[in-house]
Amino acid sequence: MEIRYPNGKKYNLTKVEKKTQLHYGNRGMTLEEDLNESNDYYLTNHIAVIHKKPTPVQIVSVDYPSRSAAVIKEAYFKTPSTTDYNGVYKGKYIDFEAKETKNPTSLPLSNFHEHQVNHIRQVLQCGGISFVIIRFSKTEEVYLLDGNFLLQFWERMEKGGRKSITKQEIIDNGHNIPLGINPRIDYIRVIDSLYKEVLD
Amino acid sequence: MEIRYPNGKKYNLTKVEKKTQLHYGNRGMTLEEDLNESNDYYLTNHIAVIHKKPTPVQIVSVDYPSRSAAVIKEAYFKTPSTTDYNGVYKGKYIDFEAKETKNPTSLPLSNFHEHQVNHIRQVLQCGGISFVIIRFSKTEEVYLLDGNFLLQFWERMEKGGRKSITKQEIIDNGHNIPLGINPRIDYIRVIDSLYKEVLD
Repeated sequence: MEIRYPNGKKYNLTKVEKKTQLHYGNRGMTLEEDLNESNDYYLTNHIAVIHKKPTPVQIVSVDYPSRSAAVIKEAYFKTPSTTDYNGVYKGKYIDFEAKETKNPTSLPLSNFHEHQVNHIRQVLQCGGISFVIIRFSKTEEVYLLDGNFLLQFWERMEKGGRKSITKQEIIDNGHNIPLGINPRIDYIRVIDSLYKEVLD
Repeated sequence: MEIRYPNGKKYNLTKVEKKTQLHYGNRGMTLEEDLNESNDYYLTNHIAVIHKKPTPVQIVSVDYPSRSAAVIKEAYFKTPSTTDYNGVYKGKYIDFEAKETKNPTSLPLSNFHEHQVNHIRQVLQCGGISFVIIRFSKTEEVYLLDGNFLLQFWERMEKGGRKSITKQEIIDNGHNIPLGINPRIDYIRVIDSLYKEVLD
């Protein structure tokens, strides 16, 4: 929104105002944007260091017109072999995948790659904290579901069962993350109560 | 090397033989290759889950000739904001950067981006295990240097001191990682003794 002084001169929003406007004005942010912003908050406040991993690409051809500006001319997206987010909180390894669905009643398991599910299994075997953050975009509800439950639902599918996790199953086995202002998705607070014994 | 039967027919190496040949035959592997192989070993044996992060690229233009084969037509390398490797060992967060130098007597600090040094500082503040693996390629010696020492040498440079860490300083403050066969660079063993209290 453009704001003008009474004399017609354009008023430039300050950084803080822009940020506030973003928070209140833009409810259309993706789960990824909300999580990146929450991670920025954790980082700035020395709470946790959690980053989204870069998208894996297979680089085929690169032009070097000058040393400082190599241009990738041909590359392909690779299937990720791990989850998207990982980092450290209170010394512990944190690892998660974020999934958003427009489906109001269930999360289709086709949202996950087999590699990612195997990665979650491996992380749990090595004592890491692993989970999925799920947003039902229609209602903006966000849940945290521990990796062990994802593995159970994945195995149910492999045995011929349903190819999705129902929203009710996510409610029953997961934890609602209330939406806040800063951070928007305060998943660390849920982790704090959920993995209390491991974290102390 | 090609191996032939007495009748001249080509002998195809088995998978295991290929692997052995790789280990004994190819001493020219880069530090990254050696580390990836070591990480594979840790993963396969359920010891630790540690991956190299994908190279961060800024994607500018993508062609979609068909859904399954999107081609990235223009992209640029981005400066990494974190270190290259991270993961989990015994529930703890492990984070490191790997640097190889042809310089026989010191590691120039120009090998690090300021972002990476800040990341190491943040990881240490959140209780993570952070270090650098340094290989002197001329002699194939590999050392592990705790992140706190890197920060000290970095600050010395910022105060106008030398722009490198001498090899002697790395020997005095770091830990030699003996080269093995499988895994090639068994840094987890060094971590085990170095961070004993944190890991139990």
